[in-house]
Amino acid sequence: MRLSPEIIKKAVTLIIRCLNGSEEEASLVAENLVVADMRGIDTHGVYMLRNIFERVKAGLMFIPTRIKIIEDKGATALIDGGNGIGQVAAKHAVDLSIQKAKDYGIGLVLVRNTNHIGILSFYSNMVAKEGMIGIVACNSAPSMAPWGGVTPFFGTNPLSIAVPSPSTPVILDMSMSVVARGKIRRAQRLKEKIPTGWALDENGNPTTDPDKAMKGVLLPIGGPKGYGLAMMIDILSGVLSGSNYGPNVKTFHRLEGPTGIGVAVMAIAINRFMPLDQFLDLMKGYMDSVRQCKKAEGTARIYLPGEIEAEKELESVRNGVEIHESTITTINQILEELGIDYKIGGVR
Amino acid sequence: MRLSPEIIKKAVTLIIRCLNGSEEEASLVAENLVVADMRGIDTHGVYMLRNIFERVKAGLMFIPTRIKIIEDKGATALIDGGNGIGQVAAKHAVDLSIQKAKDYGIGLVLVRNTNHIGILSFYSNMVAKEGMIGIVACNSAPSMAPWGGVTPFFGTNPLSIAVPSPSTPVILDMSMSVVARGKIRRAQRLKEKIPTGWALDENGNPTTDPDKAMKGVLLPIGGPKGYGLAMMIDILSGVLSGSNYGPNVKTFHRLEGPTGIGVAVMAIAINRFMPLDQFLDLMKGYMDSVRQCKKAEGTARIYLPGEIEAEKELESVRNGVEIHESTITTINQILEELGIDYKIGGVR
Repeated sequence: MRLSPEIIKKAVTLIIRCLNGSEEEASLVAENLVVADMRGIDTHGVYMLRNIFERVKAGLMFIPTRIKIIEDKGATALIDGGNGIGQVAAKHAVDLSIQKAKDYGIGLVLVRNTNHIGILSFYSNMVAKEGMIGIVACNSAPSMAPWGGVTPFFGTNPLSIAVPSPSTPVILDMSMSVVARGKIRRAQRLKEKIPTGWALDENGNPTTDPDKAMKGVLLPIGGPKGYGLAMMIDILSGVLSGSNYGPNVKTFHRLEGPTGIGVAVMAIAINRFMPLDQFLDLMKGYMDSVRQCKKAEGTARIYLPGEIEAEKELESVRNGVEIHESTITTINQILEELGIDYKIGGVR
Repeated sequence: MRLSPEIIKKAVTLIIRCLNGSEEEASLVAENLVVADMRGIDTHGVYMLRNIFERVKAGLMFIPTRIKIIEDKGATALIDGGNGIGQVAAKHAVDLSIQKAKDYGIGLVLVRNTNHIGILSFYSNMVAKEGMIGIVACNSAPSMAPWGGVTPFFGTNPLSIAVPSPSTPVILDMSMSVVARGKIRRAQRLKEKIPTGWALDENGNPTTDPDKAMKGVLLPIGGPKGYGLAMMIDILSGVLSGSNYGPNVKTFHRLEGPTGIGVAVMAIAINRFMPLDQFLDLMKGYMDSVRQCKKAEGTARIYLPGEIEAEKELESVRNGVEIHESTITTINQILEELGIDYKIGGVR
């Protein structure tokens, strides 16, 4: 079902406000979740509101979010997210890293003790809009093993890098697994086989059976390369921040305890290296050259990182954002449970 | 053939000195190239000396290396490598980034207008030895296409991240392609097929024929993910540094002009986030946990990133470093051509 983004944002805002969130954090969460749906990343969209709601209700996450600056000196800082809303802590880290990049050319802010922060491109994009390169990474609950192993140890540990351009920023936003676990769950539902290379079974053998894959581990991109990248993100955002790491990170999707997620945010000031205008001109030429490469047989168009999502977002602005029926039902249930007199999605 | 590392280092040093290199840059190149061989990365070992020699002789690269600091302010700096020895420029960037991380918590130094810098772990390891996390990346000559394309546009654009530990640092050192082009060349020589997923033919179709693959492009890890990572490294080390980027980067292996390679070096001071001792303790536990994961069927041992190379290096210290016969011949030819009275590898 297609809805106006503003109508869903209002629902999210009302719910977060009712859960004791400030006006500011309510609108931040609304923006972050709805933009994910608008960009076609519905796994990180308003569907997540159920998790926030249940987690707050269970006393496993605290609203309003009480940020604490543990250390702030020179070009680096360390923040405690107070086991509150991940979006609030991450936004705080973004603002601080931008300020540091203005002062020192680069800023690195780590966050400990926070929760799911939604799509990472939301934050890297904020940095890019300031004429800086934004880099954001975080750890997540274990789903991948060390290379050669079968114990879930690393999360898919996403990374986003956003670069300003004369048009929309170029935004990479990726996890370190070949596919998300959701794709295997879908194959399970549809009773389809999965390609080899997606996952291992519980004994560490390649499998095309989604049921066996769900009991095993996801495979990292590039084998040992993705294993290494996932580890490095875990070390930077989890170990160095003093947060949880490895198998100690709890999933946001079940109520097994505080997640202990750690986040790393970096801003790099372009104007320390060349005038921003000159960089934007270079990027224009760069993007044009990439697009003009000879296409593979059967390929209609070459996309830049984040371009598919940016176009989807524009389309959602024009035609409304696609929200799954079950998500609408969930949101309306939460609204009702909280006694909020507001419904989305028309008559049910 | 196994040789004492010191004997080869002496050959490299004599050659670089004879090519007008300073004592310092000669020993730096010797160290960098020989360590690559000792770690089993012979594509980046003393075999590269031929390229340096030919390039200097052709007037496409200048020794001694004249570094110029273009900008140095706060936590960032920009260096012009003077189209000299890559190792010299990269080492300079390492020293400067470490100093900046001491002063500001993090340092980012970009290098423009340099050449092949050898194995990246050499530099990230230097940073790790200072109790910091070292991150090094550079661009390289085009061999991969944008996702959906077949024009060689990006290099395999390597990335290395080194993290201090109570024992040897954990060192990731990887390129963004599934395999190096050398593996396809070897299959060509041996008239073997290659697995799908390594490369595309010139029309952008998957191929198992190494001849067709050599006319096509290498595939990035994780498909569009590796494409995005390669682009981001190119933008950071090439575009932002004011160096060459994309298809304008020339290969170091043929004399087609200055390479224009760009490099990015980052140092992150661990003690801004927690006492170094505490971090090292955490890393000990982390590494132990990774090693103790349940192994996949048929796997004898789980390795940490860089561990295979570190053990190979130790073995080379004990038993000598394995150098291919043809490389020994090449080095002896260069020594002779330069009129240097020194030979390696015994009687020929």
